Amino acid sequence: MRFKFPLVALGLEIAMIVLFGLFVRYEEDQSSQHFNASKGANVDKFIELYPLFQDVHVMIFVGFGFLMTFLKKYGFSSVGINLCIAALGLQWGTIAQGLIHGHGQAIPIGIKNMINADFSTAAVLISFGAVLGKTSPLQMLIMAIFEIAVFVGNEYVVVDLFRASDVGASMTIHAFGAYFGLAVAGVLYRSGLREGHDNDESVYHSDLFAMIGTLFLWMFWPSFNSAIADPGEKQYRAIVNTYFSLAASVLTSYALSSLVEHRGKLDMVHIQNATLAGGVAVGTCADMEIDPYGAMIIGSISGIISVLGFKFLTPLIARKLRIHDTCGVHNLHGLPGLIGGIAGIVVLANDPSKRIMQGYALGTSILSAIVGGLITGLILKIPIWGQPSDQDCYDDSVYWEVPRWREHDHYFHEREHLSQLEPEV
Amino acid sequence: MRFKFPLVALGLEIAMIVLFGLFVRYEEDQSSQHFNASKGANVDKFIELYPLFQDVHVMIFVGFGFLMTFLKKYGFSSVGINLCIAALGLQWGTIAQGLIHGHGQAIPIGIKNMINADFSTAAVLISFGAVLGKTSPLQMLIMAIFEIAVFVGNEYVVVDLFRASDVGASMTIHAFGAYFGLAVAGVLYRSGLREGHDNDESVYHSDLFAMIGTLFLWMFWPSFNSAIADPGEKQYRAIVNTYFSLAASVLTSYALSSLVEHRGKLDMVHIQNATLAGGVAVGTCADMEIDPYGAMIIGSISGIISVLGFKFLTPLIARKLRIHDTCGVHNLHGLPGLIGGIAGIVVLANDPSKRIMQGYALGTSILSAIVGGLITGLILKIPIWGQPSDQDCYDDSVYWEVPRWREHDHYFHEREHLSQLEPEV
Amino acid sequence: MRFKFPLVALGLEIAMIVLFGLFVRYEEDQSSQHFNASKGANVDKFIELYPLFQDVHVMIFVGFGFLMTFLKKYGFSSVGINLCIAALGLQWGTIAQGLIHGHGQAIPIGIKNMINADFSTAAVLISFGAVLGKTSPLQMLIMAIFEIAVFVGNEYVVVDLFRASDVGASMTIHAFGAYFGLAVAGVLYRSGLREGHDNDESVYHSDLFAMIGTLFLWMFWPSFNSAIADPGEKQYRAIVNTYFSLAASVLTSYALSSLVEHRGKLDMVHIQNATLAGGVAVGTCADMEIDPYGAMIIGSISGIISVLGFKFLTPLIARKLRIHDTCGVHNLHGLPGLIGGIAGIVVLANDPSKRIMQGYALGTSILSAIVGGLITGLILKIPIWGQPSDQDCYDDSVYWEVPRWREHDHYFHEREHLSQLEPEV
Repeated sequence: MRFKFPLVALGLEIAMIVLFGLFVRYEEDQSSQHFNASKGANVDKFIELYPLFQDVHVMIFVGFGFLMTFLKKYGFSSVGINLCIAALGLQWGTIAQGLIHGHGQAIPIGIKNMINADFSTAAVLISFGAVLGKTSPLQMLIMAIFEIAVFVGNEYVVVDLFRASDVGASMTIHAFGAYFGLAVAGVLYRSGLREGHDNDESVYHSDLFAMIGTLFLWMFWPSFNSAIADPGEKQYRAIVNTYFSLAASVLTSYALSSLVEHRGKLDMVHIQNATLAGGVAVGTCADMEIDPYGAMIIGSISGIISVLGFKFLTPLIARKLRIHDTCGVHNLHGLPGLIGGIAGIVVLANDPSKRIMQGYALGTSILSAIVGGLITGLILKIPIWGQPSDQDCYDDSVYWEVPRWREHDHYFHEREHLSQLEPEV
Repeated sequence: MRFKFPLVALGLEIAMIVLFGLFVRYEEDQSSQHFNASKGANVDKFIELYPLFQDVHVMIFVGFGFLMTFLKKYGFSSVGINLCIAALGLQWGTIAQGLIHGHGQAIPIGIKNMINADFSTAAVLISFGAVLGKTSPLQMLIMAIFEIAVFVGNEYVVVDLFRASDVGASMTIHAFGAYFGLAVAGVLYRSGLREGHDNDESVYHSDLFAMIGTLFLWMFWPSFNSAIADPGEKQYRAIVNTYFSLAASVLTSYALSSLVEHRGKLDMVHIQNATLAGGVAVGTCADMEIDPYGAMIIGSISGIISVLGFKFLTPLIARKLRIHDTCGVHNLHGLPGLIGGIAGIVVLANDPSKRIMQGYALGTSILSAIVGGLITGLILKIPIWGQPSDQDCYDDSVYWEVPRWREHDHYFHEREHLSQLEPEV
Repeated sequence: MRFKFPLVALGLEIAMIVLFGLFVRYEEDQSSQHFNASKGANVDKFIELYPLFQDVHVMIFVGFGFLMTFLKKYGFSSVGINLCIAALGLQWGTIAQGLIHGHGQAIPIGIKNMINADFSTAAVLISFGAVLGKTSPLQMLIMAIFEIAVFVGNEYVVVDLFRASDVGASMTIHAFGAYFGLAVAGVLYRSGLREGHDNDESVYHSDLFAMIGTLFLWMFWPSFNSAIADPGEKQYRAIVNTYFSLAASVLTSYALSSLVEHRGKLDMVHIQNATLAGGVAVGTCADMEIDPYGAMIIGSISGIISVLGFKFLTPLIARKLRIHDTCGVHNLHGLPGLIGGIAGIVVLANDPSKRIMQGYALGTSILSAIVGGLITGLILKIPIWGQPSDQDCYDDSVYWEVPRWREHDHYFHEREHLSQLEPEV
C-alpha cells in the first residue's frame, strides 16, 4: 500500500494530461466572437451559464463532501476523498464524454462540457456514499475510472440513441449512481460487520457538518436540474419546478421522520437526506409542463418514500440482500431516481413512442449500473487495493494523519475513565 | 404531541398543493419568448436575476440557519427547524403575496415571486430567533402561517398603498420580523428562566458554526438589498451602498465590542450579529443617491448601536419588559431596521409627501408587527402545541434523536484526568 | 491595550468615510444608461460580472477565514480577524487603487473597483497567514494599512508601467502577499517558540472547519483568475485553464502527501493547502493560449512543489532563516506564485520585450514585498500594539471572550468525573 496510492494517482494524472493534449481544444467560437468584438451566442452563453455551473460545482465538492461527514471518525475521508475522486472524475469525464459524443474528434471545451464533467463525477460520489468507510482511497480512484466509463456509455444510449428526456438526470445520475454503488457494496459485503460497527455512528457536531452539505445541495438543486436545459422556457420551468418540489419534500420528510421515530422525534439521517429527494425525483420531468403543483406532488411523495426507505428498506436490504448502504444512497438517490423515471413516463403518457423510450432509458440505466457495479466490485475485491480491515472501517486514522487529540472520541477515552472509575461500566 | 406535528405538517403541505393547483401558473412570456426564439425581456431577467436569487436563497437557509447554531445544544433545531419553516414559508408566501398583489387572479411565477417568497420567510426566521429554544417545531409552523399573512398585508400597505421606498426591506422585513418576534416572546415569557438557563450559552465550536451563518449573510447582503431593485442605476447603487455600509459596520462593531467588554476583549455575540447591522440599516435607502460615504455613515452608526443594544438594552428589556430575546434580534434587525426607516425619511426630507409616507410605512410596519405578534403569541400560548418545559429549553434532545456521545475537547480536561489517573502520563 | 484597538478601529473608519466623501463617486454611465432605458455596456457588465465578484467575495471572507481555523484554539481569531482586516482593507484598497490609477481624480465605483478592492485585501490575508497566532488584532489593522499601500504601488508598476500580464495575480497578490508576510514574520520571530507551542496544532473538527475554507477557495478560483480578464476569449480561457489546473493539482497533492508521510498516510495540512496551488500557479497565464493540458501541467507541478515545500522547506526556513510561517503561506502562495510568474515568462518566451517585462514584474513584486514587509515588521515590533506573550500565542482567549466550556457534553459527563476525582468540584 505504501506506494500504490501515490503512484496510481500520479499515473492517472499523467494519463489525463496526455489525453487532454491529444483531444481537448478551446471552443473556437470564443475567439472568433472575440475578434469581431460582437458578444456572440457562445461567449454570451458561457458567462450566462457560469453561475449555474458554479452552483453545481458547489454541490459536487461542498454538498456531497460535507453530506458524508456525519460519521464521527470519518470526516477527513468524506470531504477529502470526495475532493480527490471528483477532481479525477471531472478530467476523465471530460475526455470520456467528449470522445463518445464527438465520435473521437477533438473536444472543444465549453461551459456545457464543464457542467457535464461535474455531473459525471456526481454518479461516482453517490456510489461512494454506499461504500463509505469500507474502502480505501485507491479503490475509489479505480471505481471512478470504471464507473464514469459505464456512466458515459449509458448516458449516450439514453440521450443520443433513445432521445429520452432526463434533464435533471434522475435516471442517468441518481438511479445509476445509487444502483452502481449498491452493486459494489454487495460484492464487498463484510459479514464481520453484520452486527454493525462502533464507528458507524455520528456525534453531535459531525451531524452539523453534514447539514452544511445538505443545505448547499438543497439550495442549488434548481441549478443542477436546469444547467443543461434548453434556454428560455424549459430552463425556466426546470428551475421553478425544482424549487417547489424541494420545498414540498422538506415538509413531508419532517412529517414522516417524526411519524416513524419512537416518541415522534426527528431523525437527523432523514433530515439530512430525505429533504433532498424532491430534487432527485423531479429531475427527469423538471423542464416539462407539469405545473408547480405537479412538481410539489412529486416532491411530497419522494420525501415520504425516502424516509420510509431509511426506516424499513435499508435494514431489510442489509439483512436479506447482504448489501450495507452506509449513507443510505438508495433512499436519497435510488428510490427518488426511480420515482423520477416513472414520473417522466407518466407525464409523457400521451406520447407512446417517447413514453416507451423513457421506460427503456430507466431500465438501461439501472441494468448498466448493476452490471457495471458488479464487475467493478469484483475488481475492487482483489486484495491489492489496501482495503481496510473490518475493525479499521469508518476510521480516518487508517489513511490519514489525525490530530493527537480528537474532540469526538469521547466514547473511547471516556469509556477508559468510566471503567477506571466504575469498573462495572 | 406524538402525532400533532407530522399531521399538521402533512396537512399544510396538502393545503399548499391545493392552493398552487388553484392559483399558480407559469409565467406566460417565458414560452412566447422561447417560441419566437428572441431572448426576450423576461427570460433575460430571469437568468440575469437568478444568481441574486441564489444569493438570497443561501442567506435564508445557510445564513439564518447557521447563525442560530451558536447555542451549545440547539444546533439541530436551529438549522433544521429553520429549513422546515422556510420551506413552508416560501410556499405560503408565494400564495399570499400572489393573491394580494394580483387581487385573486392566477399567479404567474417569475424570478421576483421566488425572491419575494424567500423574503417573506426571512421575517419569520427573524422572529424565530427571538423565541429560539423556547418553542416547539409545531409552534413555529403555526407562527409561520400567521406571520406571513400579516407580513404580506403590511407589505401591501407599505409598498402598494403608501408607495413607500424600502428596497432592502429595513422596515417591512427586519423591523417587522424583530418586533413580531419580540411580541411573541413577550407573551410566551417564562418567569422560570428569569435567572437564565444552563443551556443558554455557546461552546467553542458552536460559535464557529454560527460564523458560517454570519459570513454568508454578510457577503450576500448586497444581493438581498438589490434583488428586487429597478434594473440599472438603482440596482447598481443598492449593491454598492450595501457593500460599503457592511464594511463600515464591521469596523465599528469590533471597536464597540472591545470597548464595552471588560479588559477590551471581543465578544462573539457582537461579531456574529452587529457586523450585519450595516446591511439592515442601509436597506430602505440602498437604491437612493446617498453616495458610498453616506452608506458608510449609516453602517457605522448601526454597528455601534447594535453592540450597545446587546450590552445594555437586551438585559433591560428582559428585566423590565419581561421579553427574553434569545438571539438578540432586536439588536440585529430591530434597531438597525428603525435606523433604516429613519434614514429613509431623512434622505427623502426634501420631498414632504414621500417623507410622510416613509414615516407611515415605518409606523405601520412596527404596529402591525406588534399587534400580529401579540395575537400569534396568544395562540401559541394555548397548551396544545407541545411547547418544551422550562428545563427542556434550548435542548435538541426534546425534539430530535441525538447521538449517544457528543464531542468534547480532550486536550485540556482529558489530560488532567489521565494524569490524575496515571500520573506518569 | 484596553482602548488602543477600539480607538484605532474607529479612527480608521472615520478616516475612510472622510476619504470616500472626498474622492468616491457613483459610476456615471450607470445612470445615463438607466435614463435612456437601453441596457448599456456598463450596467450590462456590472450585473454580468456580479456573480464573479460574489465568488471572489466568498473566497476572501469564507475561504481565507475558514482555511485558517485549523488551529485548535484560534478559530475565533482566524475567521473573526480575517473579517475585520478584509472589511478595512476593501475600503482602503478602493481609495488607494482609485487614487493611483485615476491620478488623484474622483473615483467612480464600478464592479471592477469592487473586485480589485477585494483583491487588495487578499494580499493582506495571505500575509496574515504567515503571522497567524503571533500578533494582535491591532497589529493586523496596522499591517493592512501599510501592506495595501505597498501592494497598490507594486500593482501600478507591474500593470500600468511594465504592462506585464498577471490576470490571476500570481505575482502581484500571491507571491507578494507571501513574501511580505514572511518578511514580517522574520522580523517578529520569537526565539521562545523555537521548539514549537502546545497550541500550534489542530484538533479533529478544527481541521474540518478548515476544509470549508479550502473547498470554497478551490471551487471559486476560476472566478478569481477571470474576474478582471478581458471579456470573451480571454475570460473564457482564464476560467477553463484554472478549472483544469486546480483539478490536476489535487491529484498530485494527494499523491505527494501520501508519498512523503510515513506509512503513506495523507496529511490534512497538505490537502488543505497544496490542492489550491494549481489556482495560484496558473494565475499569471490563465488567460493565455496555453491549452488545458498546459494548465494541467502547471497545476500538477505546483501541487508537487507545494507539498514538498511543506515537508522540507518550511522547517528549514524556520531553523535557518528564523522565519516561522504558521499557515505555510510560502508553500500555498509563495512557491506557486513564483511558478506562476516563471510560467508567464516561459509562455511569452517568443516575445522578448514582454518576457523581460514579466521578469521585471516578478522581481519587483518580490522585492517590494520583502522591503515593505521588513519595514512593516519593524513598525509592528514596537511594543505598543498589544502583541501576545509567547505562551499566549495561538490562543483566542487573549483577545476574545471564550465559552466557559469548550464542548458541551464535557460539561455534563466530565463534571461527574471531576466530582468523582475531586469531590469538592
